Amino acid sequence: MYIHNEDTICAPATVPGTGAVSVIRVSGSDALTIVDKVVTCRRGNIADADGYTIKFGTVHTSSGEILDEVLVSVFRAPHSYTGENSAEISCHASSYIASTLMDLLYEAGARAAEPGEFTQRAFLNGKMDLAQAEAVADVISSQNVTAHRIAFKQMKGGFSSELRSMRSELLELVSLMELELDFSEEEVEFADRARLDSLLAEIISHVSRLIDSFRLGNAIKNGVPVAIAGATNTGKSTLLNALLGEDRAIVSDIHGTTRDTIEETLNIDGILFRFIDTAGLRETTETVEKIGIERTFKKISEASIVLGMVDLTRDFESTCETVREIIGKVDFSIQNLVILLNKTDISEVNNNVTTSNFIVSELENKGVAGKIPIIPISARTGAGISELRAHLASTQRNLLGDSDTTLVTNQRHVQALNDARTSLLRVREGLAAGLPTDLAAQDIREAIYHIGSIVGEISTDEVLGNIFANFCIGK
Amino acid sequence: MYIHNEDTICAPATVPGTGAVSVIRVSGSDALTIVDKVVTCRRGNIADADGYTIKFGTVHTSSGEILDEVLVSVFRAPHSYTGENSAEISCHASSYIASTLMDLLYEAGARAAEPGEFTQRAFLNGKMDLAQAEAVADVISSQNVTAHRIAFKQMKGGFSSELRSMRSELLELVSLMELELDFSEEEVEFADRARLDSLLAEIISHVSRLIDSFRLGNAIKNGVPVAIAGATNTGKSTLLNALLGEDRAIVSDIHGTTRDTIEETLNIDGILFRFIDTAGLRETTETVEKIGIERTFKKISEASIVLGMVDLTRDFESTCETVREIIGKVDFSIQNLVILLNKTDISEVNNNVTTSNFIVSELENKGVAGKIPIIPISARTGAGISELRAHLASTQRNLLGDSDTTLVTNQRHVQALNDARTSLLRVREGLAAGLPTDLAAQDIREAIYHIGSIVGEISTDEVLGNIFANFCIGK
Repeated sequence: MYIHNEDTICAPATVPGTGAVSVIRVSGSDALTIVDKVVTCRRGNIADADGYTIKFGTVHTSSGEILDEVLVSVFRAPHSYTGENSAEISCHASSYIASTLMDLLYEAGARAAEPGEFTQRAFLNGKMDLAQAEAVADVISSQNVTAHRIAFKQMKGGFSSELRSMRSELLELVSLMELELDFSEEEVEFADRARLDSLLAEIISHVSRLIDSFRLGNAIKNGVPVAIAGATNTGKSTLLNALLGEDRAIVSDIHGTTRDTIEETLNIDGILFRFIDTAGLRETTETVEKIGIERTFKKISEASIVLGMVDLTRDFESTCETVREIIGKVDFSIQNLVILLNKTDISEVNNNVTTSNFIVSELENKGVAGKIPIIPISARTGAGISELRAHLASTQRNLLGDSDTTLVTNQRHVQALNDARTSLLRVREGLAAGLPTDLAAQDIREAIYHIGSIVGEISTDEVLGNIFANFCIGK
Repeated sequence: MYIHNEDTICAPATVPGTGAVSVIRVSGSDALTIVDKVVTCRRGNIADADGYTIKFGTVHTSSGEILDEVLVSVFRAPHSYTGENSAEISCHASSYIASTLMDLLYEAGARAAEPGEFTQRAFLNGKMDLAQAEAVADVISSQNVTAHRIAFKQMKGGFSSELRSMRSELLELVSLMELELDFSEEEVEFADRARLDSLLAEIISHVSRLIDSFRLGNAIKNGVPVAIAGATNTGKSTLLNALLGEDRAIVSDIHGTTRDTIEETLNIDGILFRFIDTAGLRETTETVEKIGIERTFKKISEASIVLGMVDLTRDFESTCETVREIIGKVDFSIQNLVILLNKTDISEVNNNVTTSNFIVSELENKGVAGKIPIIPISARTGAGISELRAHLASTQRNLLGDSDTTLVTNQRHVQALNDARTSLLRVREGLAAGLPTDLAAQDIREAIYHIGSIVGEISTDEVLGNIFANFCIGK
């Protein structure tokens, strides 16, 4: 196994010096006797204390001086986070005290924990599976209600149980097939081919749904990507500022000011959005700006939502060109487009109507008119901004749908699901082509392996190392 | 009293999002029932739990979703930090979870604690006196063994008990005097004047010793101030860098580079030193530099230790001038001087001897030869730097002397002690001049008041407000 699981580890679970108390975690079979060497309690030893009790004690330095008075929370195996004997020492939040206390614990026989090692032990001791362990880090880093909900559900095993039931269906399938193999000389078909195929199709569609959910799951975890696109000097930076309420982007009147892309995150109604201001769409001969425009196209293609901005004060010809360019770049099957008619504060009403009509006809050509909202705004005065925010939040909320739907948020999980799907598709093709059952059974075993790797039924030292290296110390 | 002590307060005791766990503190008569409203435990209510036990529970948001699974440490009055019913909720260190949990506690009837309010309640509930409460903040902020030792001793009441015994001696004195007053018509002298005077002298000298200890106590708390003085371009900045091991000050060959003073702190052998690089001593017509030189003199006068640097490669005349200038600025009764002969790597040995001899003769004139070390160094190569560090540490360690000696580290305490001394000196003068006993008794009462104000026997809302406003939230 990746880690020698016998020794006792310790680490600060809080950052010393930035609060009132610091907590230091100790875990391992000798955790309580090691803490006894460091903390002197008036009323009995920590090693003799019941689990889920707190002992008051004094810590002395190696030279015999009092370092601090502490509270020790006692947890006994298996009823602890790691499943091992554990203690949490709560001391004054002084970096001097915390570092000295850590030194004393080292002297007493503990060693410094690696990042994520407490959670890793919880996994190795069967307190949680790998997908749940990975969700612990997501729970800690989640900054809004939606991301938190998904991570917490995964930590509590929601995703894992879905995978487990899928895995047991595949196991049943493969055992039927292998039974058939045992009797192959008798040319018996135990497995009903039609039923087998329909079961496979069901599982493949389930796996596909999970894979597809990653786009949304990832968006929620890291922020829904929203690209702000439009011609240069349309007011994209001003819109970004209006949305954020601060002057993040430099706004100027010179065409092509926003050379690079700027990303800002914003919480709207408990959903994290990642706004990407892009370089203006404009024919240019300047190399630097050309690179910027290429980047714009890339950012637009990666966004979940595209805010297409139109400057109402421009001449009709160039507006039409911009509109066509934006609409041409959006993949309406997976992306949402919102058209913003900007500068309503200074544009002429006639112009507004003409532009709107043109846009509607363009959208009709694409067969999406009526589905794409057209919102008149003024980025400068803030008019229409609250409508835009409300629209963004409701769009995303509709996508989220039922809060019980599982969303995949982890790159590693998507990779494993993709691998599983590849194997399953091969099984289906093979069976249709009349390939031998033993080949199909092997492919199903592969799919089972990939699905099992997500929850850690199968895991290598390298996989574990990569996963837990991204954790913070003390977790 | 400063604070309505009946309601229940809550605050994070750790900074969320920077560790593995966050701790939220709740304290007040309703603390446990309020936590019961927020945390659902499978095995019985928190309000029914024994003190010093831990309960596992689940927190739901107001919309009924699970927010987190938490551990609640239960403390029952008076056996808690504040002396009130208290709970510490340990949750995942996510800022979303912590802030939502705080909101839920507010809804359940708790209010946000002011900075230092937990410690203030500990004081108001008689768990510690004011001097001890003030030491809590010092314990948290202490960064080295010496500062920690002083703060911890004060927190445990070492200073307070010294003040209390002084106060009770004064109370005895004043009661003797007031007894005399009751019988004043009979012209009896209960108090033996000679004995009274010697008692007073003893207490005044004790108070004076405490006042004098502030220079050292403050130096330990905030760093022992060490001024690096010398002519321009002698290598002061280079020395600072050599001591710190990093390029903090800009070093250049242009005379008068270090216009402003630079302060850097450095831990040597558990003692914090505050190094002050000063503008070079040099006759100048430039206004900016003149201001710098005046500042140098001020910094030198405030330092505990002056490092007088001599450039061995300069002509003898200017060296003599610099040496005289430095020696003239040092108050040998309260300051330590160390002479550093710099640039030993490139100077001529003859020159070194001549300079040393001159310095010794100058020190003899001041009557301090033999007490002032002369250390040859090369700031550039690092030669002699470890000797200098060892000397600084041992000098300070000698000053510290017996680690049981009380050191005053708090400006407010020194102020109160100064006021007490003024009153006591007035008593002594008055008694010597044969002033009426009732005036003297009143002055002693004043001294008792001032000494009592340190531990908080007498305190005003304003004083408490000022003290606890400097605490962090959650302590």
